Amino acid sequence: MKYFFIYAHPEPTSLSGFLMARAVQSLQASGHEVIVSDLYAMEWKAVADENDFPRRQTDTGSPLNYAAASRKAFSEGTQSPDVAGEQQKLLWADVVILQFPIWWYGMPAILKGWFDRVYANGFAYGVGQHGGNKWGDRFGEGVMKGRRAMVAMTVGGRMAHYGPRGVNGAMDDVLWPIQHGLLFYPGFTVIPPAIFYEVGKADDAAVEVMAQAYIKNLLEANQVEPIPFRSQNGGDYDDVQVLKQELDNGFQGHALHQNGAVFISNIALGKPGDYSPQHFAPDSRS
Amino acid sequence: MKYFFIYAHPEPTSLSGFLMARAVQSLQASGHEVIVSDLYAMEWKAVADENDFPRRQTDTGSPLNYAAASRKAFSEGTQSPDVAGEQQKLLWADVVILQFPIWWYGMPAILKGWFDRVYANGFAYGVGQHGGNKWGDRFGEGVMKGRRAMVAMTVGGRMAHYGPRGVNGAMDDVLWPIQHGLLFYPGFTVIPPAIFYEVGKADDAAVEVMAQAYIKNLLEANQVEPIPFRSQNGGDYDDVQVLKQELDNGFQGHALHQNGAVFISNIALGKPGDYSPQHFAPDSRS
Repeated sequence: MKYFFIYAHPEPTSLSGFLMARAVQSLQASGHEVIVSDLYAMEWKAVADENDFPRRQTDTGSPLNYAAASRKAFSEGTQSPDVAGEQQKLLWADVVILQFPIWWYGMPAILKGWFDRVYANGFAYGVGQHGGNKWGDRFGEGVMKGRRAMVAMTVGGRMAHYGPRGVNGAMDDVLWPIQHGLLFYPGFTVIPPAIFYEVGKADDAAVEVMAQAYIKNLLEANQVEPIPFRSQNGGDYDDVQVLKQELDNGFQGHALHQNGAVFISNIALGKPGDYSPQHFAPDSRS
Repeated sequence: MKYFFIYAHPEPTSLSGFLMARAVQSLQASGHEVIVSDLYAMEWKAVADENDFPRRQTDTGSPLNYAAASRKAFSEGTQSPDVAGEQQKLLWADVVILQFPIWWYGMPAILKGWFDRVYANGFAYGVGQHGGNKWGDRFGEGVMKGRRAMVAMTVGGRMAHYGPRGVNGAMDDVLWPIQHGLLFYPGFTVIPPAIFYEVGKADDAAVEVMAQAYIKNLLEANQVEPIPFRSQNGGDYDDVQVLKQELDNGFQGHALHQNGAVFISNIALGKPGDYSPQHFAPDSRS
């Protein structure tokens, strides 16, 4: 299989960097192909702006409509080379992994800026035809359909604080905009995330357990049951894209947008002594 | 009152820029003080990295622990001047407004990078003492306690798609990591957001209604009922920071972390013909 890591950590010797390096090594040793976009090492341009459209800049200074400029550059083949290059990596991959440390309940800015720029209009959105009850290709359809994606995230905080009643809110709530909004939107099949907790306290033994569990999950990425997000055009939503009232899986909030089951973190490792893979369940303290 | 806008849009003539300019003008005309950090105009450095610690760079190349370096620089007064300057603006303000267009279910990277860098260790986190059942100052306590903050967000999509059963997931779910994670965490009192939908279709009359509603909300920022997030150290969480089992407001997910009520968007304007302020309710199509 072809694995594409999009990796965002400023320090190569971090636990995040170590886990990725180990994963890459193991995947390659198992005969898989791997590409890594190390955003810090690439000095990735994080800010979406006028400079993303080299050809446009030679025009007179008309106001920038980023979405329109993105559509034009994508369709004409005049995108910034770094953006076009990342799109080709996505199209190459079978499995895409976002690996990053949680910073303020989300991704580091450099990774958010990867999506702001690489997810061009006509590539990741604005795809497919509207018509009748069909609303274009997104949420289950789109250019990434048939590829899988997962989040791999290192967390300084404790697992309990991200449990269903934990003070930070549930990890599923933190991940919702990423898993549904960034990954499911352009068509990825989203598989459960690998979450590594209390990474600052992990000793060598804990790190080894984390690495082995991570590698196992990556090797099984093509077999694991995906998060069952509902497809936009699969019949569950009405003609204004509102979930049909009769569809009720017993949940409130975003969990309604899954077909029955809840999210499961396939790795949820905590501090030493708390190594065994644990699953989040809606009513347990994970 | 003292208003501080943190504004992130690459195009000054955008609707986002227009709304902010009108708001600033009206607030000043009413005798209030206003500061704007226009992140694009400032060419704000979005990426948190080694260069944020000028003094550290003269040392030998030890691995970067960003949180530790941040704590040291903050406590020693050796932070990057742009970071220290933004912290001073936060400490000056009575009301902080994050104004931005929604990009991929979140903030533009340049704004996320503002938080990654300005929210220093010792300033926005790592504040207060742990001890017994008390876990330091966050979620209801912290340096920003007594100040108010709100999100003002322009959205291309339709209001119905962000309703309780809308295909994007509820707007409250999109805003959870921002309102609870970024604003409530360091102590802000979070007031309901101003959300402007279908901004690409708004005609002049619609824009005027949006501007007037926004100005009214800003003028009333000190009186409006805040989002009733639960305080970490207020007695609702147990000694491992898990919400006590007996506290049940009838909701699942992050709404559990409010004391009874649900989020209300105080502006939720849609396309022309759909101008009147609407409130999200848990079971209506807003």
